[in-house]
Amino acid sequence: MSANVPTDICFSFTGLMQRGGRTGPHADGWGVVFYEGKGYRLFRDAAPSAESDLARLLRDLPIKSCTVISHIRKATRGKITLENTHPFVREMWGRSWCFAHNGHLKRVKRWPLDLYRPVGTTDSEHAFCWLLNALRRRFSKPPRAATFWRYVHQLALELSALGTFNFLLSDGRHLGAFCSTHLTWLTRQAPFGEAELVDEDLRVDFSLHTQPTDVVTVVATRPLTRNEVWTTMAAGSMVVFAEGRPWLQFGGS
Amino acid sequence: MSANVPTDICFSFTGLMQRGGRTGPHADGWGVVFYEGKGYRLFRDAAPSAESDLARLLRDLPIKSCTVISHIRKATRGKITLENTHPFVREMWGRSWCFAHNGHLKRVKRWPLDLYRPVGTTDSEHAFCWLLNALRRRFSKPPRAATFWRYVHQLALELSALGTFNFLLSDGRHLGAFCSTHLTWLTRQAPFGEAELVDEDLRVDFSLHTQPTDVVTVVATRPLTRNEVWTTMAAGSMVVFAEGRPWLQFGGS
Repeated sequence: MSANVPTDICFSFTGLMQRGGRTGPHADGWGVVFYEGKGYRLFRDAAPSAESDLARLLRDLPIKSCTVISHIRKATRGKITLENTHPFVREMWGRSWCFAHNGHLKRVKRWPLDLYRPVGTTDSEHAFCWLLNALRRRFSKPPRAATFWRYVHQLALELSALGTFNFLLSDGRHLGAFCSTHLTWLTRQAPFGEAELVDEDLRVDFSLHTQPTDVVTVVATRPLTRNEVWTTMAAGSMVVFAEGRPWLQFGGS
Repeated sequence: MSANVPTDICFSFTGLMQRGGRTGPHADGWGVVFYEGKGYRLFRDAAPSAESDLARLLRDLPIKSCTVISHIRKATRGKITLENTHPFVREMWGRSWCFAHNGHLKRVKRWPLDLYRPVGTTDSEHAFCWLLNALRRRFSKPPRAATFWRYVHQLALELSALGTFNFLLSDGRHLGAFCSTHLTWLTRQAPFGEAELVDEDLRVDFSLHTQPTDVVTVVATRPLTRNEVWTTMAAGSMVVFAEGRPWLQFGGS
């Protein structure tokens, strides 16, 4: 989620968590990062989200944030442990960078690493470390955002040649979403209407919970609601969201 | 806390959290890291711990871990924000390192940094980054633990020349505790007895909750219980705990 005002994710999270073992097979752990300024709150659990006490608690806790990344895991590489649970976080240039991946990259663990190294054994964390290493090698200090994200897109294309590499990356200001096979997004803004979850019998009327100037984008592997129009991303494309709106686009048609 | 079997910190946490705004002045945020294997759970809040919903919840949630670091903050440098809240975490050599500091280091922010940079504006996070930078400069790969901690002690002495520098540092296997002015610890093992908190009207009979082989050490700025014998550390000394027991000692008499 990317938003222009601190927004809670209770509604979307309720739907997503069902996919972690109930309406979907991603039962091998879950995690969520809420940015708050330059800081972040990180919650992770190796238990299925549909059965997790912590997930149930968060579902009802209206933590407000302008940038949230949440992930449910289906283990393809790496055991079901806390250190293999997304999102992964690293500091680069004095910002906390957060990464979550859907897919699998064959043999990425043979790609050499330097400054950043994985703590767990997933292909995902290895790819994240490789990405950060490449960024630090290219830029000795933070470049302009557009330059930065253009290079992230190039690196993402390189990595995605190894397999499936849908991912989200953020430093809390921008949210980059790279589509390798499946990624879709939706911007909610005035006039707000009603939305209905796909995975749970729940509706919300956003007009009752929003201000007319609020803008919120939700990105997901598959649409979370059944009665709204989601934009499907093209394979190989990346959208960078800022303050709730799509801001930069690379690749695709 | 360092323990030889996964242990919850509900009892100690109950006492500590009271010092965050009720029985103590450390009301500018709090945080706790629970290691689980190489992974960790991190909870932080900029609200006073004595009034925090999240802290109340954790107090009653028996998360079990062999290494826990918890901190309550009294802001001396840096605003009361999430990014200025301890513990701080960084990855080094494929392990997650966690750091919490009590005290203040004058002008440490003039000390140059390289690979690791602070996200927030505290002297503490700057000192942590400086420490990690120095360790990576000295060791291109992880050295033997005794060599590693001996060098940490040297660096700690350098830093503590700038002011007050009581700190805890861990990678989940070892827990290093450096005493600049105040630090005290206590090992609980069979035969277990009853303990009574200083800060809250609460007692626990550990013999009802433990196995005879359990060994648990708790380190704190000031004793958390009134009826047990705590070991006060000497200024300039460091103890490294492993599996619940003091394992290495540097400095002091």
